Amino acid sequence: MTAQPQTAAAWRDFEPMQLGPILGNALDAFHENGFHGTTVRDLARRVGVTVPALYYHHENKEAMLVALLESAVRDLIDRCRAAVAEGGDDPVLRFSYFYEAVVLNMTHRARPSALDSEVRHLSPENRRNYAAVRKELELMLLDLVADGVERGVFVVDDVPETVRALLGMGQSIARWFQLDGPLTPDQVAARYTAIALRVVGDPSAS
Amino acid sequence: MTAQPQTAAAWRDFEPMQLGPILGNALDAFHENGFHGTTVRDLARRVGVTVPALYYHHENKEAMLVALLESAVRDLIDRCRAAVAEGGDDPVLRFSYFYEAVVLNMTHRARPSALDSEVRHLSPENRRNYAAVRKELELMLLDLVADGVERGVFVVDDVPETVRALLGMGQSIARWFQLDGPLTPDQVAARYTAIALRVVGDPSAS
Repeated sequence: MTAQPQTAAAWRDFEPMQLGPILGNALDAFHENGFHGTTVRDLARRVGVTVPALYYHHENKEAMLVALLESAVRDLIDRCRAAVAEGGDDPVLRFSYFYEAVVLNMTHRARPSALDSEVRHLSPENRRNYAAVRKELELMLLDLVADGVERGVFVVDDVPETVRALLGMGQSIARWFQLDGPLTPDQVAARYTAIALRVVGDPSAS
Repeated sequence: MTAQPQTAAAWRDFEPMQLGPILGNALDAFHENGFHGTTVRDLARRVGVTVPALYYHHENKEAMLVALLESAVRDLIDRCRAAVAEGGDDPVLRFSYFYEAVVLNMTHRARPSALDSEVRHLSPENRRNYAAVRKELELMLLDLVADGVERGVFVVDDVPETVRALLGMGQSIARWFQLDGPLTPDQVAARYTAIALRVVGDPSAS
């Protein structure tokens, strides 16, 4: 039963991100030069404002990275929720749609997704907060895999480690995928979802 | 037939790395502050030498990153070769040992392996050179998977994409693994190798 048809229909659609000029330029700069390699002065120059104007909007450079990371992971979680809802009561479909949403995100949103590798540069507090948000994604997938095992459609020895491996495999796509490359997001999603089904021991996937 | 018994026996052994003071400190600094966030002045201070003394040994900061990346990937390739040799003529064993070597490397050598995320900051020429070395690893795995498919022990639809997914899954371990954490390298290697066997459709893995 999908109570939110609009959301459910939209999880496969990726419109251009609405980050605004500051965060949009911050994303470019972090991507090109890394978090530590970007100065607030660089950012102000890119945006075309003064440094104090930048600080008026964001407490510091780290707050911009946090804003980018959190908006990326929250968007992904929303898509995954809608994907799972569309899967209804079918555990294989729920899992497949979830993983498809993850892979579509890692391709359409490769640059913000690749920022995940900058998380270790956050302060302990910000790292904890981000980890807590991202944990929701892990818990959703844990629930999907455990449910499939319980219903006898998946066979998994170690559910938490399998979930971590699946998310790691998905995350790695953001590091090589390019929208102008030979594969479309849909093609990558189809291939990785088939691989993910094998990982959870879905008999129809072999 | 393993012509090099010493090498074959040693691929599971990880002694402390012999990087020397300059590259050892560069690894620490890149890990803590990222490549762009590390200055040559920082490095000289950590090593306890002058900036010119540092330049005497390494052309620039990028040359140090290249040296670290290349030594890490060459060491991994050597281990993988020895692992495959130990697998003899058994395609499942060859594949399993190869993947075990990859995962052991991502755990015992998590910090140098995580430097892979800094590759995008290299100059195009250095990036190409590093990619060419790393390509050997991909070709070895391609060969192992294709061989298993040919011999009828693996079932894989898309060999190149499966290989990329397997390496991405392995690479992601370096981002979370800690030697003082709850899992040992051997435990992680056993779990991920079992998952990798499922990915290639080994019937005994399900």
